[in-house]
Amino acid sequence: MNLRIPGPIPVPDDILHEMSRPMINHRGPEFKEMLYRVSGRLKQVFDTRENIYILTASGTGALEAAVVNTLSPGDKVLCTTIGSFGDRFAEIAERFGADITTLGFPLGTAVDLEQLRSTLEADDGIKAVLVTHNETSTGVTNDLESIANVVKGQFDKLLLVDGISSVCSIPLHTDAWRCDVIATASQKGWMLPPGLAFISFSKRAWRAHAEAKMPRFYFDLAQYQHYFEIGQPPYTPSISMMFALDLALERIIDEGLAALYERQARIGKFPRSGLLAQGLELFANERVASDTVTAFKIPNGIDSTELINILQNEYQIVVATGQESLKGKIIRIGHMGHTTEAEIQDVLDALAETLPKMGFISPTTSVV
Amino acid sequence: MNLRIPGPIPVPDDILHEMSRPMINHRGPEFKEMLYRVSGRLKQVFDTRENIYILTASGTGALEAAVVNTLSPGDKVLCTTIGSFGDRFAEIAERFGADITTLGFPLGTAVDLEQLRSTLEADDGIKAVLVTHNETSTGVTNDLESIANVVKGQFDKLLLVDGISSVCSIPLHTDAWRCDVIATASQKGWMLPPGLAFISFSKRAWRAHAEAKMPRFYFDLAQYQHYFEIGQPPYTPSISMMFALDLALERIIDEGLAALYERQARIGKFPRSGLLAQGLELFANERVASDTVTAFKIPNGIDSTELINILQNEYQIVVATGQESLKGKIIRIGHMGHTTEAEIQDVLDALAETLPKMGFISPTTSVV
Repeated sequence: MNLRIPGPIPVPDDILHEMSRPMINHRGPEFKEMLYRVSGRLKQVFDTRENIYILTASGTGALEAAVVNTLSPGDKVLCTTIGSFGDRFAEIAERFGADITTLGFPLGTAVDLEQLRSTLEADDGIKAVLVTHNETSTGVTNDLESIANVVKGQFDKLLLVDGISSVCSIPLHTDAWRCDVIATASQKGWMLPPGLAFISFSKRAWRAHAEAKMPRFYFDLAQYQHYFEIGQPPYTPSISMMFALDLALERIIDEGLAALYERQARIGKFPRSGLLAQGLELFANERVASDTVTAFKIPNGIDSTELINILQNEYQIVVATGQESLKGKIIRIGHMGHTTEAEIQDVLDALAETLPKMGFISPTTSVV
Repeated sequence: MNLRIPGPIPVPDDILHEMSRPMINHRGPEFKEMLYRVSGRLKQVFDTRENIYILTASGTGALEAAVVNTLSPGDKVLCTTIGSFGDRFAEIAERFGADITTLGFPLGTAVDLEQLRSTLEADDGIKAVLVTHNETSTGVTNDLESIANVVKGQFDKLLLVDGISSVCSIPLHTDAWRCDVIATASQKGWMLPPGLAFISFSKRAWRAHAEAKMPRFYFDLAQYQHYFEIGQPPYTPSISMMFALDLALERIIDEGLAALYERQARIGKFPRSGLLAQGLELFANERVASDTVTAFKIPNGIDSTELINILQNEYQIVVATGQESLKGKIIRIGHMGHTTEAEIQDVLDALAETLPKMGFISPTTSVV
């Protein structure tokens, strides 16, 4: 099966193999050594000198951790959103009592820096800004460096980042860009199954933590830091995932982050040019299109469920439809982690065979 | 390595092997089928007609879910505690704003039903009672059926149960005993690695949920129920753990719960009689001793760290020390899941060789 959804991604066999290792004591010396080795490498990927905390949770759990560890009920929070995952981040903050202002942008586009700037200018009571680095629901990447320049450089707000599908796929420099919290999850660029989430926490975030009154227990990072000092997790973690993470990070560091980002950017271009060549329309503006997931519009008259079923049943290719208002309107092709051009070419070939049979007439096909 | 801590436990090879299966789409037909199959079997283990929800989290996350899905800040909660995990359950409720009354009992003993009854009688404002079914920090099992008779039968309170180390090890009848919420985790009797938690939720718990004001997002069971209806998880789950759970449940149901409980009770007696025969003193009262973990007192003059190191380095046996005030005072031997008498005998033999060398003179050894 060619699993081409935007996470979980196909995991290399040797990393999958690590998942089957026998259990160890999570409060013993072997785990401690692994925790410190893994943490050191996570810091390299995040490009930070601060600790990265490992949560046994989905990415959404890490988003909740970002919010509840830094904010109090009633805090004014500006939630930028360019899709479903931005909406979710805002909803978490709202559920925990933040006073949220939502700054939304049309689906398929990115955060507009001018609008961000003017919104922050208009309300100096805003304490924190929420940003989605890479919006998998639309296939758009925000320019996080420029956003951070505004949020941190010009306005000095807390910057909380959903990096679930960006960290370890798209260039990111946590400290240099002054991101206070970045939450990410294992089933994306890390070449791992789902089950773990990782979160960075700046010195400024720790100062916010000291005053933050949102209730928290399982996700309270103070406990993670406390136990980290003795080489332990606060609660029994997903040990199998730690084994797999250990090997995945070894491979990531061996490849080198510059090479990894370059490879990811190259594979990101591949489906875009292939889809355009078939006369299909990309959903995201080319300038902001994500290198981790590509969304194209379902041509008029084509039934997306039928298309997805044909790809799955006849070609063993699994792609994703759109979420919420985009359901049935776009198809999303994931290419995170160790995706090859051949795997993407198979998707392009399947589309090129299937769509015309379903009645799609490519505008690029000249009619003689 | 003979891993004899009270979780994680050694996982059978064929179940570990499932952890290495390739990823699938968590929103596709294969996952849906697995989710429904697994859920049906989880209901058999919990002995309930209600749905069981699967969380990607440690057991502590499930304890948080039990609290935040049923309670509001200011609610009066009676927290019974017989050890560290009871204390933790109370702390979670307190962090989220419950007005808690702690009813503690001496370490090594269980909840006293008379004291429970008189405490509930004295304050009819109490809304919920927290109970630890099996306290792994002391090796004590509470008589949950009798406790439920008091809490539900006599006083009709919400009953929230920490069943982390009891479910699938110790007889439990969720519906018959009218337990409203029972939280448990994979790394105990289920023969699985850590990484998933399971939680039951009664109709009464759902009525409490409708009014419960504690903030929740990742652990909001309404989302899990909503997505369950279309055969999906709300957030990307630990797919590898789902594969392993699927096989583990098949084996559990094949063995039969009555046979499983009987086997567990038999293996529970084995270390107790073996330790007593060596002249060691058990920590828990015999009447309430757990069949999943056995704690014995470190004899006077013996250094617990040295003992643990010798067992680990010379015998490849990993046991646990006590937690918090019991650190260095007791040793805990885990025997959950598929533990054999031979594995326990190895621990007993190692102790019988080591302790005398460390200066322990057994009171059962007659001096000639």
